[in-house]
Amino acid sequence: MFNLMSKKAKTHIPRGVVVRLTRYYAILQELRSRRAQWVSSSDIAEWLGLTSSTVRQDLSHIDFRGISRKGYNVEGLAATLAKTLGADTTWSMVVVGAGNLGHALALHEEFPRKGFHIKGVFDSDPAKIGRRIGSLRVMDVLTLPRFIYEKKIDIGLIAVPSQAAQQVADLLVAGRIRGILNLTQTHIVTPKTVPVAATRIVSSLQELAHLIKRQS
Amino acid sequence: MFNLMSKKAKTHIPRGVVVRLTRYYAILQELRSRRAQWVSSSDIAEWLGLTSSTVRQDLSHIDFRGISRKGYNVEGLAATLAKTLGADTTWSMVVVGAGNLGHALALHEEFPRKGFHIKGVFDSDPAKIGRRIGSLRVMDVLTLPRFIYEKKIDIGLIAVPSQAAQQVADLLVAGRIRGILNLTQTHIVTPKTVPVAATRIVSSLQELAHLIKRQS
Repeated sequence: MFNLMSKKAKTHIPRGVVVRLTRYYAILQELRSRRAQWVSSSDIAEWLGLTSSTVRQDLSHIDFRGISRKGYNVEGLAATLAKTLGADTTWSMVVVGAGNLGHALALHEEFPRKGFHIKGVFDSDPAKIGRRIGSLRVMDVLTLPRFIYEKKIDIGLIAVPSQAAQQVADLLVAGRIRGILNLTQTHIVTPKTVPVAATRIVSSLQELAHLIKRQS
Repeated sequence: MFNLMSKKAKTHIPRGVVVRLTRYYAILQELRSRRAQWVSSSDIAEWLGLTSSTVRQDLSHIDFRGISRKGYNVEGLAATLAKTLGADTTWSMVVVGAGNLGHALALHEEFPRKGFHIKGVFDSDPAKIGRRIGSLRVMDVLTLPRFIYEKKIDIGLIAVPSQAAQQVADLLVAGRIRGILNLTQTHIVTPKTVPVAATRIVSSLQELAHLIKRQS
């Protein structure tokens, strides 16, 4: 019984910890490119403005044993984090919204390098449908559910105006999308089986505005 | 002495709390546009997937008294959050990097609506310098420090390739920028007086990939 519970705890990492694991993974990749062999929790903590006990506690959630007096083994920790964060596989995506942001996302070179491949771009505006973006053509949003279902798309990026976000989320869910990245300022609702992550640039700017006000 | 300490605690809200306050503020704006008068901590908690005790604890960091049996007063709480997050003033910004992402950011209509005004776009690529983006012309990144200093720019957005991020951060700091939003995957270092916030779309995708893997 105790073993079962501990296994469950290992697979259900709290959301805040997962977010920090993505930052550790970015640091580990940088260290790996510099051919570093070992890294300590206090080094990671200092680079990211955290305490080393937070780093150690967070890393205790993943199944990793390569710890020595010199710290964590860089190669091993990077590989374990990659597995935890799905960075060891490839993911197919669609972008919904072919405005400025959607356009930029569809052409963003970092995505394919990190295993995230954009297979389609959608919009509801007749003036945008049919236009070329890189090697893709903008498709009608009405064909979105069928496209997702037939191509087995994993992730949908929502880059439409806020007021259309929920409607797009519903279309993605209708096509049996596996997860959604919401880039609008609006909160969207999905079934429990479809996780949502959010990137809100305006929220980051407001966070920054608070920190600047605090300085002065 | 005790009073002084409690005052200090009020102005130094932990970073994680500030991030959640930006999400409460987005919800409050939505409620205000629907002319809602009151909102409970448990409603906010449910919309954002948090516990109501987290919401209550977070909101105890800001100086707000409009609480009744019906919950928080929407108008009052929105105004207090706006003040805390600097959303009651306007901020001037520059975008560094005129690639796809920088281009999209420079034209992003939500920024001016939220009080964030882009005053200049910079790049180091001679092919990009001089090009029009909306009403702006791309300027040479070498003129960045002087521009920031003379125009008293508040915030710099870094949207360049990862390997150039630190160099751009140094130029922003040289011009006495007040805060930086880092949109690259790299960690950047600044003096303690220049706060940095980060928006990493790839990190959000990795967070999502973990959640999807957990589902299956």
